[in-house]
Amino acid sequence: MQRRNYIFETIKNVFLLHGFQQIETPAMENLSVLEGKYGEEGDKLLFRILNSGPVLEQIRSSKSEIRNADVTEKGLRYDLTVPFARYVVQHRNEITFPFKRFQIQPVWRADRPQRGRYREFYQCDADIIGSNSLLNEGELIQIIDTVFLKLGIDVTIKINHRKILFGMAEWIGEEDRIIDITTTIDKLDKIGLGGVNEELKSKGFSKEAIEKLQSIINSKGNNIEKIVALVAVIIKDTIIGIEGTTEITKINNAILNLESLKSNLELDMSLARGLNYYTGVILEVKANNVQIGSVAGGGRYDDLTGIFGLPNVSGVGISFGVDRIYDVMEELKLFDALKTEQTSTQILFVNFGEKEELFCLKLVTELRHAGIAAELYPDRDKIKKQMSFANDRKIPFVALVGEEEMKSGKIKLKDMQTGEEKHVSSEQIQELIVKR
Amino acid sequence: MQRRNYIFETIKNVFLLHGFQQIETPAMENLSVLEGKYGEEGDKLLFRILNSGPVLEQIRSSKSEIRNADVTEKGLRYDLTVPFARYVVQHRNEITFPFKRFQIQPVWRADRPQRGRYREFYQCDADIIGSNSLLNEGELIQIIDTVFLKLGIDVTIKINHRKILFGMAEWIGEEDRIIDITTTIDKLDKIGLGGVNEELKSKGFSKEAIEKLQSIINSKGNNIEKIVALVAVIIKDTIIGIEGTTEITKINNAILNLESLKSNLELDMSLARGLNYYTGVILEVKANNVQIGSVAGGGRYDDLTGIFGLPNVSGVGISFGVDRIYDVMEELKLFDALKTEQTSTQILFVNFGEKEELFCLKLVTELRHAGIAAELYPDRDKIKKQMSFANDRKIPFVALVGEEEMKSGKIKLKDMQTGEEKHVSSEQIQELIVKR
Repeated sequence: MQRRNYIFETIKNVFLLHGFQQIETPAMENLSVLEGKYGEEGDKLLFRILNSGPVLEQIRSSKSEIRNADVTEKGLRYDLTVPFARYVVQHRNEITFPFKRFQIQPVWRADRPQRGRYREFYQCDADIIGSNSLLNEGELIQIIDTVFLKLGIDVTIKINHRKILFGMAEWIGEEDRIIDITTTIDKLDKIGLGGVNEELKSKGFSKEAIEKLQSIINSKGNNIEKIVALVAVIIKDTIIGIEGTTEITKINNAILNLESLKSNLELDMSLARGLNYYTGVILEVKANNVQIGSVAGGGRYDDLTGIFGLPNVSGVGISFGVDRIYDVMEELKLFDALKTEQTSTQILFVNFGEKEELFCLKLVTELRHAGIAAELYPDRDKIKKQMSFANDRKIPFVALVGEEEMKSGKIKLKDMQTGEEKHVSSEQIQELIVKR
Repeated sequence: MQRRNYIFETIKNVFLLHGFQQIETPAMENLSVLEGKYGEEGDKLLFRILNSGPVLEQIRSSKSEIRNADVTEKGLRYDLTVPFARYVVQHRNEITFPFKRFQIQPVWRADRPQRGRYREFYQCDADIIGSNSLLNEGELIQIIDTVFLKLGIDVTIKINHRKILFGMAEWIGEEDRIIDITTTIDKLDKIGLGGVNEELKSKGFSKEAIEKLQSIINSKGNNIEKIVALVAVIIKDTIIGIEGTTEITKINNAILNLESLKSNLELDMSLARGLNYYTGVILEVKANNVQIGSVAGGGRYDDLTGIFGLPNVSGVGISFGVDRIYDVMEELKLFDALKTEQTSTQILFVNFGEKEELFCLKLVTELRHAGIAAELYPDRDKIKKQMSFANDRKIPFVALVGEEEMKSGKIKLKDMQTGEEKHVSSEQIQELIVKR
C-alpha cells in the first residue's frame, strides 16, 4: 500500500499542478451504459451483478422464459473512460468546459488472472474534454514527462496520429481495411518487420501495398526527418494524411520550443493502439531498459459522449498503468531509496508494566502532538518479544523506560540501526528522530 | 471529492501517527466468506456477482435443478471487518502481532437508497488485533478525540461494556434475553425512557425488572458517580458485571490521568450497539448540537477470526462514518474556511493566439516547476468566455499576456477577488500567489 500510494500521490500531485479536478464514479453502472462499448470480448469480460430480491427462486420457477434483465441489470466498471463519458453527459449543465478531470479508481475484468493481469486493478486517468486545441496534447505529454521524471523512470513517449494511419491506408489503396492494417503493424515490437509483412500477406495485402507500408513504418531518423519523409511519400496524395502530419508537426515544434521535456518524444508510425474510439493523436509510453508493455497511453477521441446523446464534444486523455509502473520500479529497485518498507512509526516504547505504561503514555502523546508517529507496546510481553516486534516492523528507535528512568526522567533509547543505547531527555528524542 | 479527501486525509494522518498500517482488500469476496456474517437481513443486502461464462444460456437450457453456486459464487464487500478477519487468517504467518491496520474503502449494500443511506459508501476502519490490553481501547479513544478535534467537530464519546449489559440482564433475572434487552434500550435516544419501558413491557418483562433496568439506564452524574452507583446495585451480585465495570474504570482512569482528552467521555449504560460480535468495551460517538446518528463507533470482539479457523484472537476497532461526518461538517459550515470549493489552480493565463500561447507556455511551465498549479486556457475563445471560465472555477488570479506584455516582459495580472489589475514580473506573480 505504501508503495502504491507513493505512485498514486506522485501522479495525483502532477495532475493537480495542471489544474485537473478529481472525480469518482460508482463501481456499478447500468449494463446499458457498459455493454457494446468494449467490443465482443469486453462484453464477455464484464462482471454482472445479480439483481436484488429472490432472483434465484424466480429463475427456478420460470427458467424457460427468463430474460437477461430479470437476472442482471448492472455491471462493474470496466474502465474509467466510459463512466466518465456518462458522467459528462449527465452533468453537462453543471460542468465548466473545457473540463479537466482526473480519476483514480479500480476497474474489474472477468479475465483469467495472471502476472500483470488482474481481475481488479487501478486505473489512473486524466482527460480534457470540450476543447479541440492541440495545447491539450502538449500538456498531456508534459504531464507524462513530469510524472516519470518524479518517479525516476526513464521513458520514451511514442506519438502517432490516427489520421496518418488513415492516410497510409489510403495511399496503399486499402482505406477500407484500416483495422486489419493497424492491428498488424501495432505488433511490430513483438513480431518484428518480417512478422508484420507475413501477417499482412496472409491477410491478402498485395506485395506492392506491403512494400509501401514497410517504407513508412521502417522510416528512421528524428521526428523532423520522419515527418519530411512522410510528406514526401504520402502527404501529396491524401488530405487526411496531411491533417495528421500537420498536427504532429505542431505538437513536436511546441514541445521543442519549450525545451523542458526530459523524455524522448518519438514519432512512431507503427503505433496504432487497440481502442477504436481514438480519432486524432495517439500516445504510448515505454520504460527504457525494461522488458514490459506500455506504462501509459492515451489519445484524442472526437465523439466519446455521442453514444450517450451529447455529440461533437472532443476530448483527449491519458491513462497511467499503475500496476506496470509498480513492476518497473521494483525491477529498477527504485523503491529501495524511498524506505516504503518502513512503518510510519518512528519510536516504540517498551511496556514494562502498569506504572510505566501511564508514564510512557504521556511521552507517546507528547510525541504525537509534535507530529511524530509513536507507539506504546500494548501488552506486558517479554522484552525479547517486544524488541522483535520493533525489528519486524522496522521501527528505527526503541525507548526503554523502567523504574530508574521514571525516577531520573532520562529515557533509555536504543537506535535499532546501530544498536547503540543511550539515556536522553524527551526533547532529545524528538531531535534525534527529526534528524534521522 | 476535495471535501471528502480532506476528511480521509485527516483521519489517515491520525491513524499513521499511531502506527497503523494501511491495507486494501478486493471488492469481491467468495460468498462463503460473506454469507451468514451479517444476519438474515445482511444476507439479503449482499450484492452478488453473476458467474462468468454463458450462465444465462445455461439457466435457460438446464433441465435439472439449478444450484445457487451455478449462478453466483462471489459477492461485493459489505463491510471492512469481515474481509479483514479473512485477511488476518490468510496472512497469519506474515503478520507481526499485535497488528494495527487501517482500511479506507467503499462497501456495497443492496439497500433502498435515501439520504444518509447509499448503495455504495466509504468505511474508514482502524483495528488492533492480537492484543487483550485495555491500552488499545484507550488509544482508540485518543484517536477519535484527535480526529474530531482536527475536523473541528465537538463530540461526545459514549462508552459502555457488553459485560455490564450482561450483568444487568443477570441482575434482573433475564440473562437469556440479553438481545431483547439491548435492542430495546439502545433506542433510548430515539423513543425516550417511556418508549423503552413500554417496549420492554410488550416484550413481556416484569414490572420489577423494568424498574430495575430503568434505575441503571437513567443514572446521572459523571462517570465515577455512575460507576459507584453501578457497583452499589449490580456488582455485588454478578461476576460478569464486575468484570465489565472494572475495565471501564481502568480506561476512564487512564484517560483522566492523561489529561489530553478534549472531548467528553461519557459512560452510557443504555449504549448497546447492534452488532452481536462485540464482547467487551463498546464505543459510539455523537456530534454535539447536530441532529444525526453516530459519526463513529466500535468495540472489542473476542473471536472474529474464529469463523475462519483462527480462534482466540482478540481485537478491538473503530469505524468512522465519513458520509455522516461530511453532513455534519456541511451543517456546521466547517468547509467554508477550508476553501475546498476552490480548484487547485492558482492562476489562469488567457489565450490570445498562437504567438502568445508559446510565450505563456514557458511561464506556466516555470510556475509549475515552482510547485504552483497553473493553467493556460487551451482555446482561442473570446476573452469574456475565458474570464467567466476562471470565475466559475474560482481561480484567484488571471494573467493577460498580449503583444504589449510580450514586448515589455511585464504581465498584466488580474486579482479575481478584488478586481484589481496591475503589471508585474513573473517573479512577482510567484510572490503574490504564495502570499495569497
